[in-house]
Amino acid sequence: MKIVIDAMGGDHAPKSNVEGACEAAKMWKDMEIILVGDEAQIRPLLQDAPSNITVVHAPERIEADDEPVKAVRRKKGASMVMAGRMVREGEADCMISAGNTGALMTTGLLVVGRMDGVERPALAPMLPTTDGKGVLALDLGANMDAKPEHLVQYAIMGSIYREKMHGMPKPRVGLLNVGTEAKKGNELTKEVFPMLEKANIHFVGNVEARDVLESNCDILVCDGFVGNVMLKSLEGTAGSLFDVLKKEFTRNFMTKMAAAILMPGLKRLKKMMDYKEHGGAPLLGLQGLVIKAHGSSDKRAVLNAIRQARTALENQLIATISSEIAGNNSGK
Amino acid sequence: MKIVIDAMGGDHAPKSNVEGACEAAKMWKDMEIILVGDEAQIRPLLQDAPSNITVVHAPERIEADDEPVKAVRRKKGASMVMAGRMVREGEADCMISAGNTGALMTTGLLVVGRMDGVERPALAPMLPTTDGKGVLALDLGANMDAKPEHLVQYAIMGSIYREKMHGMPKPRVGLLNVGTEAKKGNELTKEVFPMLEKANIHFVGNVEARDVLESNCDILVCDGFVGNVMLKSLEGTAGSLFDVLKKEFTRNFMTKMAAAILMPGLKRLKKMMDYKEHGGAPLLGLQGLVIKAHGSSDKRAVLNAIRQARTALENQLIATISSEIAGNNSGK
Repeated sequence: MKIVIDAMGGDHAPKSNVEGACEAAKMWKDMEIILVGDEAQIRPLLQDAPSNITVVHAPERIEADDEPVKAVRRKKGASMVMAGRMVREGEADCMISAGNTGALMTTGLLVVGRMDGVERPALAPMLPTTDGKGVLALDLGANMDAKPEHLVQYAIMGSIYREKMHGMPKPRVGLLNVGTEAKKGNELTKEVFPMLEKANIHFVGNVEARDVLESNCDILVCDGFVGNVMLKSLEGTAGSLFDVLKKEFTRNFMTKMAAAILMPGLKRLKKMMDYKEHGGAPLLGLQGLVIKAHGSSDKRAVLNAIRQARTALENQLIATISSEIAGNNSGK
Repeated sequence: MKIVIDAMGGDHAPKSNVEGACEAAKMWKDMEIILVGDEAQIRPLLQDAPSNITVVHAPERIEADDEPVKAVRRKKGASMVMAGRMVREGEADCMISAGNTGALMTTGLLVVGRMDGVERPALAPMLPTTDGKGVLALDLGANMDAKPEHLVQYAIMGSIYREKMHGMPKPRVGLLNVGTEAKKGNELTKEVFPMLEKANIHFVGNVEARDVLESNCDILVCDGFVGNVMLKSLEGTAGSLFDVLKKEFTRNFMTKMAAAILMPGLKRLKKMMDYKEHGGAPLLGLQGLVIKAHGSSDKRAVLNAIRQARTALENQLIATISSEIAGNNSGK
């Protein structure tokens, strides 16, 4: 099992990537980890590194504010692009990056390449739910516009992901909509609804954004634009509420004392709402496994992304998606 | 000034509607208020009613779970439909209803009628912001799919609403999008962006859903599907967070004591996030003024909706929108 890590991606690169990789390499001796990036920066961090970790020098890096398509096309020697090339050429089974999300989606599309039969790969993060189980939402921004057949593929890929990764035998697929009745929605959702009913998934119908946190489905399907708006509404509302709470709680001595007593509960709540806690987001529908770790990933988050990759590889995630997509396409 | 109220609409009908109307009639003697609904239920509530309040009997009513288009077409004698007819025929200047939202939008479209030059009327509620000023968001569900020219009309109508209703001289229009850069988004937002730049409004560019609560614009423009998803994400997140907070705060004796001290602050926060506090939502782009009061409206909420109607009528809202839309269309 070979995993390549874009050592230069993320806010704490290369330190957190190198440290997370070392921990993983110590934990799983059967795993080979390749760090791609600026050797001069990486080497000093690799004191006492286990032998199953190697470094490949990359002369360039993609910055957080680089324009994705341009950067991927021009910076052939960027750590992210080189990692993608290693997956495409079979030199690695999976790549992980905490770098520029747009650039990683472009690397997935242009360098790693789409899976046969998949029209649009999807970015599929886990969103928090109040019961702690989370919901896999896709697409959350890889493709702004979607056709009905893309949404059906998202549903199939998401179902396999939850089966393989979380051991869910019959994960519930919901279609993000403005009401629960079958005929609700815009042209896209009305057209895709009967197609989802016929697909080889456990479709539970339309779900409303207000119920997503209440765990009303295991996979939430939507187009990338709507999904991204929903995700940011969720984050923004939670963030604004915590800010106002903080102001209320520091109003005077009494409220500060009271807030101190409630702090463990508030921390639990904040942690629950922090979707960064829920692992990296896979890019589904590519020829190889690509995982987007959060930009602010620390050592632990990188280690978790590697664990996630390990689970996916052990459970033949990509091969299973590929054969299911082929079956769905031939059944048309 | 004549205002007609659908007395049978809303969860507390007809009581809250009749009581709110009576208060308004006493407060503003120059106003004529017409209550449309079941006379047998309304009359007993009208003891000591001022003389500027009258009743028109309606033999039917639209229920909360009626299918909108069917109900409006078939129930010609429903209080909501009769109120719409009175606006269309000039017997009233404005109608207010706390009833079935879908049916009210259908009544607006089929009974009151579209304003000349407006292709799609929009539902435009105020959303809460942390600074208390609020943001007018449209469309939040009247039309699921929208074309670029519809969004331009939403922007114009929303700008006039905030100028006339809230005395804002140059309200900021934002386009709901997945990023702030000009080229971000789906086909719709990319196409409408340059059109909004050219329109006779104060366009401030793309805004992200995560910043909406932070008051980054005064009018937020989006298609009805996306807007509705955003609204429900916002409501759902706030609701779920309050539920979890409640659980944390009632965990044991100490947390209960602490929570009691913080209660006033929590109540302020909850009130701030309750978009029901922010008045009724106008349906903009119709030949007459139609205001959707919240389904759970009490006496005070009905009175507030009447006050809102009064402000709109005093400030020539509809006539101003009509002339601006005509100017925009002729300028094409």
